Amino acid sequence: MTTALERTDKPALSEADFIAGFHAIGEERYHHKHPFHQLMHDGQLTRGQLQAWALNRYYYQSHIPLKDAAILARSHDHTFRVAWRKRVLDQDGDGVTPGGIEKWLKLVEATGLPRIQAVTGEGILPGTRYAVQEYVHFVSTHSNLEAVAASLTELFARKLIALRLDRLREHYPWLSTGLDYFTGRLTQAPEDADFALAWVVRHARTREEQDAAHAALRAKCDILWAQLDALYFAYINPGWPPPGAFVPPEPVPQ
Amino acid sequence: MTTALERTDKPALSEADFIAGFHAIGEERYHHKHPFHQLMHDGQLTRGQLQAWALNRYYYQSHIPLKDAAILARSHDHTFRVAWRKRVLDQDGDGVTPGGIEKWLKLVEATGLPRIQAVTGEGILPGTRYAVQEYVHFVSTHSNLEAVAASLTELFARKLIALRLDRLREHYPWLSTGLDYFTGRLTQAPEDADFALAWVVRHARTREEQDAAHAALRAKCDILWAQLDALYFAYINPGWPPPGAFVPPEPVPQ
Repeated sequence: MTTALERTDKPALSEADFIAGFHAIGEERYHHKHPFHQLMHDGQLTRGQLQAWALNRYYYQSHIPLKDAAILARSHDHTFRVAWRKRVLDQDGDGVTPGGIEKWLKLVEATGLPRIQAVTGEGILPGTRYAVQEYVHFVSTHSNLEAVAASLTELFARKLIALRLDRLREHYPWLSTGLDYFTGRLTQAPEDADFALAWVVRHARTREEQDAAHAALRAKCDILWAQLDALYFAYINPGWPPPGAFVPPEPVPQ
Repeated sequence: MTTALERTDKPALSEADFIAGFHAIGEERYHHKHPFHQLMHDGQLTRGQLQAWALNRYYYQSHIPLKDAAILARSHDHTFRVAWRKRVLDQDGDGVTPGGIEKWLKLVEATGLPRIQAVTGEGILPGTRYAVQEYVHFVSTHSNLEAVAASLTELFARKLIALRLDRLREHYPWLSTGLDYFTGRLTQAPEDADFALAWVVRHARTREEQDAAHAALRAKCDILWAQLDALYFAYINPGWPPPGAFVPPEPVPQ
């Protein structure tokens, strides 16, 4: 699955153009544009649909430390590892302060689902599982440059999370006990993105490497987008979860 | 990703009950029930939607020899390998007689798409790629018993293919030059399924192994189903392909 770098005779992009390329990709492909998020932000999701979202996205959250550990496991750069391991700590916690996974379980509970359902993964959509596994697989089989570049969706996360926090509080006040994950990410995501972007800029020296870094961010956007596609298709329109998937406890409006 | 066999105190199923379990799973979960196929068989798909189907399913077809080679690569049973390699030959061909991949490319061409688009994979849905990669990954990380059991969707293939051949000829006569793949599978699928079922029955001796074999068939049904979910969502209802995906050349009726 490892992608051979495509040979090109084009000169390397300037740092400004290289960075602008990431932002252009985000503008086109980041999941802030997905209609599932638009319905969420407009207050049009039912509790059952939010349960399906929290349940399925837990599977993503729970795999982020595996993804980051796979990156750590392939880096021979001690300084990089020290910086990157922060992510595993942020998500797994330290046994005292809750990490991102625990905070997401609080969100699952705030929707009214038992945490055990998320932990066991019962009823998670196959489309969710395949997309998440693709992310772990991607970072395990591509260069660390591409793996770090794939994390750069965090460049766009703060804006989406700030909007989401506002709208969740406004439209779904019964979720208010479950929003710690997002308040944490308001500061973590920009810190992580700053480090990752500086590292990618420093290590993508040729045009081939720059193109591969841009492609990695596109691939990551696809992974996020596909998870919302699966949710939208199963739970919103036309609304048939595949055999064995979570069925919301209330009717889904058509 | 390897699944540990779940311990159970239940006795092994009789051969008849074990086999009946596969058929019950197929009845519930095989993709003959997916609404995409129902629209296809009712003659309600546009040429553009059939192009999207042929293009995306080519990605599945082209990965079947990789899946079967992964199974071969993990089997120490010479007799099994001799039997199983037939599948690689059936799909890849022998350089003279076309194999399944080449026949599927003829189907792609019959829909009006150039074969190069399928070969390069341009515009294939991310959801298709993730589901197909999951199949290769599944057989590479589970026991050969589970990998062979996953192939048992072929038990149900003949009936679906016979119906599909009838309906494609009836509703989409312009596809008639592209149907060799299906006529070939009318005999190959039952032969392959007979061998695989006999092998699975012989090698699943404990209830744990029998349960794992049933679970593998469920996992495979999910993989097939998820591919049609992705197609249905992108191209039928409500009809927005994700950024970068194939866009049919004619409007999709709502």
